[in-house]
This record gives sequence, C-alpha cells and structure tokens, in this order.
Amino acid sequence: MAAESRNLLSNIRIVLCRPSHPGNIGAAARAMKTMGLSQLYLVSPKKFPHADAGAMASGAVDVLECAQVCESLEAALEGCVLAIGTSTRQRDLQTALLIPAEAAGKALSEAQGGNVAFVFGNETFGLSKEELARCQALMTIPANPEYSSLNLGAAVQVMAYELRRTALAERFAQPELDAADLVEVERFYGHLEKTLIEIGFLNPASPKRLMPKLRRLFSRTRLQKEEINILRGMLSAMESSNNPKH
Amino acid sequence: MAAESRNLLSNIRIVLCRPSHPGNIGAAARAMKTMGLSQLYLVSPKKFPHADAGAMASGAVDVLECAQVCESLEAALEGCVLAIGTSTRQRDLQTALLIPAEAAGKALSEAQGGNVAFVFGNETFGLSKEELARCQALMTIPANPEYSSLNLGAAVQVMAYELRRTALAERFAQPELDAADLVEVERFYGHLEKTLIEIGFLNPASPKRLMPKLRRLFSRTRLQKEEINILRGMLSAMESSNNPKH
Repeated sequence: MAAESRNLLSNIRIVLCRPSHPGNIGAAARAMKTMGLSQLYLVSPKKFPHADAGAMASGAVDVLECAQVCESLEAALEGCVLAIGTSTRQRDLQTALLIPAEAAGKALSEAQGGNVAFVFGNETFGLSKEELARCQALMTIPANPEYSSLNLGAAVQVMAYELRRTALAERFAQPELDAADLVEVERFYGHLEKTLIEIGFLNPASPKRLMPKLRRLFSRTRLQKEEINILRGMLSAMESSNNPKH
Repeated sequence: MAAESRNLLSNIRIVLCRPSHPGNIGAAARAMKTMGLSQLYLVSPKKFPHADAGAMASGAVDVLECAQVCESLEAALEGCVLAIGTSTRQRDLQTALLIPAEAAGKALSEAQGGNVAFVFGNETFGLSKEELARCQALMTIPANPEYSSLNLGAAVQVMAYELRRTALAERFAQPELDAADLVEVERFYGHLEKTLIEIGFLNPASPKRLMPKLRRLFSRTRLQKEEINILRGMLSAMESSNNPKH
C-alpha cells in the first residue's frame, strides 16, 4: 500500500454517538485497526472505559487508549472538513443516501485536505435528528430488507473494509473545495441564527423549520473558509445596521 | 434486488470449522442474515448450542436454529460444487489468493449451478492443512499488515457484505463447468489413493507429498461429474489388471 493511501486512512475518523455497549466500542476499535484506521471518537458513551471494551478490542487496545471522549458531536467533529452520517433506515430524508463504496470514495478524496468523520448512532436508536443535521452526507449499508440490523461493530468493520478496499484500488480526485472546519461552520450557524432573531426574521418562540432548511442548503453546497468569513462579515454588518449603537 | 440474485445468495454456505467461542457463531449468524445469507454449517463447534450464540445472533436466531452441525469438513461440503477457504495469512501456498470481490464474483457465478461454501477456520489457528486441501480456491481479506486479525464474526460480515454488494451490482458468467459434488471428488481421491497403493506407486509407510500434490492438480482444474466417472472407471480397470482374481 502506498504511503499516500495510508496517510489518507489516518485522516479518517470514526465517531460513535452515545454507544450503549462497551463491547461494541472494543469491536469497533479492532475493526478499525485491522483496516488501518486509528482515530476513534466517542460522544457520551454509556460506559467507558470498561473491561468489555478492552476484551473485544483484543490487539487494538492502543486505538481504545487513544480514543477521544467528547460531550457533543460538535466537539467530536472539530478539525473535520466533512462528516458522513450512517443510517440503517431509509428515512424521510431529502438527502441522497450514498452506498459504502461511494461514501469511501468521497471520504478519501476529501481526506486529502483534512479529517473526514464517519458518524455512527446509538445501537438501538441510530442517529438523532440533531446529529443527522451535523452531517453533510449520509450513507447506508445495503442490507437484507427483512433484517437490516447490523451490529455496531460489524457496521464499522464493513465501512473500514470499504475504505481500505477503495484506498488500495483507486486514485482520488482533488477535494472539491478548500472546505472550512465544521466547528467554524457551526459558529457561522450560531451567528446566523442570532442575527436572524435580531432582525426579526426568525421568531425564537416559533422557529418552524427555518434553521434546519438553511443548514440543509449549506450542507449541500458546503462552505469554504473564505466564504465563512464573507458570510459572517455580512451578518456583522446586518447587526450593526439594525442596531447602530451596537 | 432481483429474485435471481436472491436465489444465488441462498446457494452460498458459510462453514465455520472448529469455532471456539459460541458468541462468534451468533455474530456470524447475524452478519449472514443482514446480507441475505442463510446456510450456516458448523464443523465440530466447541460449544453449541449455547446462550452466548443466541445473544449475539439477536434477530437472526432462525439462522442458528437451522444451522447444520457436522463432524467433518467433508460432511459440511456435501452438496457443494466449490469450496473457497479463507486465510488471514499469506502462507507458503502455491494457490493464488483471491481478494473478497474476486471470490464473491467466482462464488456467485458458480452458485448458478449449485451450492458454494466459504470455509472459515478456528479463531486462533485458522484452517488446518487438511481443511485447506479440501478447498478449490483461497481468499484473504486485505488487512493492515501490522494487525490483520479480524474477529471471526467480522470476517463473515465482510465476506457476506461483499457477496451482497456483488450480487446487487453484477450479472455473472455461466459456471465454468458442470462441476462434480465435492463428496464425489473426495470419493475419487479415496479410490485413487487405494489404487496407487495397490499398484505399488504409493508407499503408505512413506507417502511423502504425493496425495497433496495430486489434490492440488485436480483442485486447480476442478472436475466435472462425467470426468469423475471416467477417472474412477480407469482406476477400477487398473485394479482389475493388477489383480486378475479381484
């Protein structure tokens, strides 16, 4: 495997949101290491560290030891240029669902420019609406429609396998754009919401679906660092003109 | 998914040789069902049935309940036209190692004509030499050379995923040939060995590598039903001429 492909895999982050069973965290760590991934982030794990995690990780305890525990998905996505959510259900989504090979290609292409996260939900409930809204793309593993319930560790194994398979097989297009860090994008959303309230366009008592719709728009196009600066400059100017003494 | 592809998946058999941990049997059953596979064969499992197997199978207990327990790999391959062994190691093998996508394509192509087995070894020791010699092809999951140890359930998940992915994506060439059932092939080997001893070509006290070499030759070409009949006819003729009173 070329050094270049290995570096791309080191830019892939696996994020587990609210995992219930520590054994699954260990199985995910093992699955990752067998395929050359190392960045594991855990958002509010129910039990961690835990002996079951260590037992299931087997020879991949180093991945567990380096795992970052975060209190929010937003924090786990710090330093990422793209977050791909995983779903086992075809929900009422307006976003196209990628298959693993497509998601792997997109992720490795973008990993040339920064970290890319694959976000997995809780074993029983999957990703929440709020978590899905933090992702710029969604993927699903095509499964038996009569029983599509992959174990969390098994889902991580399939995705890690697909990433390695794709990394070994292909060369990647350049990243689509010089994407902003997702934490910067979140700060922009915060700024946008605050400004829309100040100018009276968004009623916080009845926000309806305004912010989710704006998020969807910007997730679809994605934002460059420079664009974030421009948009936030516009928002600051709006605030000043709305409240000259500000 | 077309009915045709679904039927091909139903002709794929997963054979676990001497699994130590019943939890892995359950995980394999769950992995299989999520990808539409159903034929599970267990050769001398250490503990089965077992509560751990049921717990890990989750909604795939039906696959466990239908699992066939066998005393030998030969028995588990009855009714198969092709057996593909899985290896995590690059051994001193003279057979080419397929990658999962190649193995899936070959298996689905041959599954048009009968059952095809994927054979997985014990968690710690893998497949024995004798078990490998019962397989006509070998595959490996390309893994991190620094840590290639996939959990057994995870390895079954990757292979089942690759089979479903391939079944969804492709149309298959016709089977290469009207392959004989592997039990017939084993009977031929038994007949061949007996005859070679009778005619003094094989010394049972010092057999060297004669039979493994002959097995490798016939595994490479594979044998049709008609060819088995011809070869066994030849062996019978040899025996008669060697011992006219026979």
